[in-house]
Amino acid sequence: MFQEIYYDDYRIGDTRTTLGRTITEADIVLHAGQTGDFFPHHMDAQWCKTQDFKQRIVHGTLTFSVGVGLTAVVVNPRGMSYGYDRLRFIKPVFIGDTLHTVVTISEKNDHKKRQNVGIVTEHLDVKNQNGDTVLVCDHLLIVDKKATSHG
Amino acid sequence: MFQEIYYDDYRIGDTRTTLGRTITEADIVLHAGQTGDFFPHHMDAQWCKTQDFKQRIVHGTLTFSVGVGLTAVVVNPRGMSYGYDRLRFIKPVFIGDTLHTVVTISEKNDHKKRQNVGIVTEHLDVKNQNGDTVLVCDHLLIVDKKATSHG
Amino acid sequence: MFQEIYYDDYRIGDTRTTLGRTITEADIVLHAGQTGDFFPHHMDAQWCKTQDFKQRIVHGTLTFSVGVGLTAVVVNPRGMSYGYDRLRFIKPVFIGDTLHTVVTISEKNDHKKRQNVGIVTEHLDVKNQNGDTVLVCDHLLIVDKKATSHG
Amino acid sequence: MFQEIYYDDYRIGDTRTTLGRTITEADIVLHAGQTGDFFPHHMDAQWCKTQDFKQRIVHGTLTFSVGVGLTAVVVNPRGMSYGYDRLRFIKPVFIGDTLHTVVTISEKNDHKKRQNVGIVTEHLDVKNQNGDTVLVCDHLLIVDKKATSHG
Amino acid sequence: MFQEIYYDDYRIGDTRTTLGRTITEADIVLHAGQTGDFFPHHMDAQWCKTQDFKQRIVHGTLTFSVGVGLTAVVVNPRGMSYGYDRLRFIKPVFIGDTLHTVVTISEKNDHKKRQNVGIVTEHLDVKNQNGDTVLVCDHLLIVDKKATSHG
Amino acid sequence: MFQEIYYDDYRIGDTRTTLGRTITEADIVLHAGQTGDFFPHHMDAQWCKTQDFKQRIVHGTLTFSVGVGLTAVVVNPRGMSYGYDRLRFIKPVFIGDTLHTVVTISEKNDHKKRQNVGIVTEHLDVKNQNGDTVLVCDHLLIVDKKATSHG
Repeated sequence: MFQEIYYDDYRIGDTRTTLGRTITEADIVLHAGQTGDFFPHHMDAQWCKTQDFKQRIVHGTLTFSVGVGLTAVVVNPRGMSYGYDRLRFIKPVFIGDTLHTVVTISEKNDHKKRQNVGIVTEHLDVKNQNGDTVLVCDHLLIVDKKATSHG
Repeated sequence: MFQEIYYDDYRIGDTRTTLGRTITEADIVLHAGQTGDFFPHHMDAQWCKTQDFKQRIVHGTLTFSVGVGLTAVVVNPRGMSYGYDRLRFIKPVFIGDTLHTVVTISEKNDHKKRQNVGIVTEHLDVKNQNGDTVLVCDHLLIVDKKATSHG
Repeated sequence: MFQEIYYDDYRIGDTRTTLGRTITEADIVLHAGQTGDFFPHHMDAQWCKTQDFKQRIVHGTLTFSVGVGLTAVVVNPRGMSYGYDRLRFIKPVFIGDTLHTVVTISEKNDHKKRQNVGIVTEHLDVKNQNGDTVLVCDHLLIVDKKATSHG
Repeated sequence: MFQEIYYDDYRIGDTRTTLGRTITEADIVLHAGQTGDFFPHHMDAQWCKTQDFKQRIVHGTLTFSVGVGLTAVVVNPRGMSYGYDRLRFIKPVFIGDTLHTVVTISEKNDHKKRQNVGIVTEHLDVKNQNGDTVLVCDHLLIVDKKATSHG
Repeated sequence: MFQEIYYDDYRIGDTRTTLGRTITEADIVLHAGQTGDFFPHHMDAQWCKTQDFKQRIVHGTLTFSVGVGLTAVVVNPRGMSYGYDRLRFIKPVFIGDTLHTVVTISEKNDHKKRQNVGIVTEHLDVKNQNGDTVLVCDHLLIVDKKATSHG
Repeated sequence: MFQEIYYDDYRIGDTRTTLGRTITEADIVLHAGQTGDFFPHHMDAQWCKTQDFKQRIVHGTLTFSVGVGLTAVVVNPRGMSYGYDRLRFIKPVFIGDTLHTVVTISEKNDHKKRQNVGIVTEHLDVKNQNGDTVLVCDHLLIVDKKATSHG
């Protein structure tokens, strides 16, 4: 699953859809354990009944981690994750929701300081089983340019 | 650990430092399991020896999730996480590194559409045991305004 | 969340209530995995149907660990856990129950051999969502005395 | 739970039945995390509704691992697991099914090259709560012979 | 592994020794995740270097849960766990320590209110690889009496 | 990652190599927890020092589950796992070993009873970082035939 993809190879507008993944109660328990975030919104079903959303909601960092993880299928030795912009929680995610991510190449930009790489922006749209967007973000990748790497 | 903090109570420049947390090999294994990201950068110690960083590196989403999780100490019923901006991976995190997060109130802004809430920006600076910053991001919170909520 | 609390600062009768925590099926699975206790009371839903309690019950050591863990909010560098007395399982805990712990300072005693410390007893009352007590115990802490530590 | 059992002690036809174990959603989540097998058959409840089996099915390697694990009760220092033959998935296993294993000594054979050991075959029949077989396999053990080990 | 043992069958002074179990870094990570106890004593290797014990120590509730779990080998349908007395943390447990438990029947007492059962006390002595005791406690079991249960 | 591959498409001798995966101490801990197999070979570092292999060895079911899991990259809706033959543990696997699997199409056979499917055998050769084979098995897949499925 290694595949070399250069900056030059990315085309704005290209899109792919990941496999789906059901978020389980176990995922919340494990994520609380991993992050130390035991806020009652995620861990106290009783308290949640008294809130607007009436049930436990999935940690934002879990929705993000799974939404991004679903896209991690092809290892591109020419690219490197640089960061994320405009990460927004659009809708709450509940136990039992099934998520998938639609990835769209949304931008390509030169790197300000390094001529041999460029910055590719993948727009991630994480959707639930109803097709509703629950999270969006822009994933920034630093990717080698072809010309440069050949000399 | 519930504490009501209104938009009006946040003061730009206020800062707090979280407890520390050592990132273990077990954390990587669990995070790969949670996200499905089994990229060799995180899971294949042998392959990593052939790369620049020479050893397994921690998933970006794990550093982020733990860095944010460390800040989840006080439940503020007046605030809600809205999203993150300018999330950047500054330095790689390795197994055995100990992280803590410095939180600074960096911005306060009115909400464009809703008068009774404002947007508070917490700047998160996740540092390792040497004091080097490994990740930064701006956490956006929608917080109730006092005046409004009293009438 | 570090806070220095001396023996002299504890007042008998002082009480605090922790956040709540819903015990999930995942918690039982993880606890069985951690302890090696795969007794059918916890792991065999089919067999449990033939027993008085009709459903899987939570490990006693899990109820205890969570009940105690809920109290671990403030790190007191002046105190140290010494042990527990009169730990009793009052009612069974089932999957889906939400627990919280009421902590009461119930006793203060001099240490028999060391003048500069005392023993503080925290009475832990772990309750479910109906307010029924499911587990009680007395947590013994060895805590520095003020006078002594100043000279 | 150490018990020395020599090749000579095994009797063809001897049978034992293990404790039962309910397979939970958490078990699937953990097994996906352990193996990296996030196929939608196991992880995507939404997609499974469109398939013949209508719901998530348990990984074959999980059913096998648990079915075998249930038999790991007595440590026999005279025996060693050598491999498995004719492992077959007979029926799908679903979340909530309770498995147990019936172990039968089905064969004893001399080792082709080593006189002091023999090969004992344990036939494993993993059954669900309805008594239906879900998986079978033949577990091959290399076991010390008595005579040889005494001289 | 079901075995009926009546109150009358227990003999004071009888003793058994469990299998051993190495406590790993992963165990601490999982236990923190299960209990929500992320105190730096267990999770912050950097901070621990500044303390007397110089390294991360195992949660008391983990040592207890594993020490007890190691004894959970035979299911006795005639007995029921009732509680624990005099649980004491004798020595710190570190990552990599290997624990086992020595169980001794130390007391038998009539039940104050119910004639058909008695209380059996198992004294648990949890030891590390050097034979040093790290934790002790008295496990109280309510066990059916033979005479009574037959008429 | 869905890809339709018919029986007719498989070619004997075709081979592919998976990504690598380092087996960690955490993996053993989680696998013991999942299977209930807490044999000292895997869990008691102290006891292992007294044995031939001198250190903890990885559960056979874990090596198998990971070795197979590494091959689970492409979902083929035309195929279904049917079972495994000749599963053999060739060499012990230790904590820190890095495994990968070489998959070779080794056999194609008609199904005895159903004309529209055939049985494809994938030979799995699980190797460690030294290129030594640690486990082999034959994975049997029932796969739709092209002609039949079109009419």
